[in-house]
Amino acid sequence: MATRRPKEDTAAAVEEFRPRVDNRPEQIIGIACRLFARRGYEGTSLRDIAEEAKITKAALYYHFPNKEALFHRIVLGSLRTLIDVVRAAVEAAPTPLEKVRQYMLVSADFMDADRDSWMAGSNAFWMGAESEQRTLTIALRNEYETLLRTCIEEAIAAGEFKPHNVALTGRFLLSSLNQMTRWHNPKGKLSTREVIEEYLDMALNGLKATERS
Amino acid sequence: MATRRPKEDTAAAVEEFRPRVDNRPEQIIGIACRLFARRGYEGTSLRDIAEEAKITKAALYYHFPNKEALFHRIVLGSLRTLIDVVRAAVEAAPTPLEKVRQYMLVSADFMDADRDSWMAGSNAFWMGAESEQRTLTIALRNEYETLLRTCIEEAIAAGEFKPHNVALTGRFLLSSLNQMTRWHNPKGKLSTREVIEEYLDMALNGLKATERS
Repeated sequence: MATRRPKEDTAAAVEEFRPRVDNRPEQIIGIACRLFARRGYEGTSLRDIAEEAKITKAALYYHFPNKEALFHRIVLGSLRTLIDVVRAAVEAAPTPLEKVRQYMLVSADFMDADRDSWMAGSNAFWMGAESEQRTLTIALRNEYETLLRTCIEEAIAAGEFKPHNVALTGRFLLSSLNQMTRWHNPKGKLSTREVIEEYLDMALNGLKATERS
Repeated sequence: MATRRPKEDTAAAVEEFRPRVDNRPEQIIGIACRLFARRGYEGTSLRDIAEEAKITKAALYYHFPNKEALFHRIVLGSLRTLIDVVRAAVEAAPTPLEKVRQYMLVSADFMDADRDSWMAGSNAFWMGAESEQRTLTIALRNEYETLLRTCIEEAIAAGEFKPHNVALTGRFLLSSLNQMTRWHNPKGKLSTREVIEEYLDMALNGLKATERS
């Protein structure tokens, strides 16, 4: 099946959001993003960030008054971009089934283009303590997941999908994607998108052989 | 399809391995297991364990000379039990496809019966720093995952499964299971096994509706 939204579009949208290295605040954001991805938001202190950036804590405060400000810029900004590019791809897709496919594929492109911010967002969502930050992250994750559920509902209503439980179907599909940060090597043989293409074939058509002799 | 190995068998096997509360070392193990599950092996100190157990560090040392000894007992012991119960179920299953099903269902029972030790093992595998502990965990995880790949290979060879990439098929199935600790509430409406039953139906038969009118 043809892939409607070229990978380059998503990469460009991510690039627009991604920190630039010729600029001190953007340098700090890049470092904070990497640390949030590796150690989680709770596990990263402003001191850690200042040390990595080789600046004083005072210089860091000059750019970002607190960790929350960095969090807003990185995790919430990244999730917002993810939702926007995925929604655009879903709206452009011609059928509900193709919307589900595009949702997964464009999400894969996003993960490919900026894995650190994906992991920073995922850590904040899964491991974060109760906080305003976590509440905002959850609201955006809900928006992201609801978008998939809406596509699944439409696919069921259109008779394209079997009438499984919609929430569970969404979790089933997203599990395969979310788990990828745990095993997939972005420099390996298959890109994230190529793995998700394979997974979609398995999920949509089933593992069981249909033509038995 | 009938479930060959009753859930109770797995629960009993886990129970045999599970710490007993009437016994001080076992109490310590239970606490350490919970902390490893919540904070990871690296993130848990002997001091944390002693504090939770309301004993001195000296008393803790009397039972366990170091954290590695606790790790061996909890994470490696639990993985060993998991592999043993899953292998027994796989060997008893009549067909390769049913072996794949049993692998997933008995793993789900294991997760249901002792989620703390599952998460402690999973944390050690995914988040652990390089160490002898992590190497041992990885060897056991490999043994566990290889068992599934062997079943998938057999299912493909028998013409029961489509000839997808075996490693990717294994990851696809295990992703749905591994991701469950992140969203599933064990006290909720569906047990881990019931979710995996649904997932297996989706994965084996596909989400796409086959009878189009």
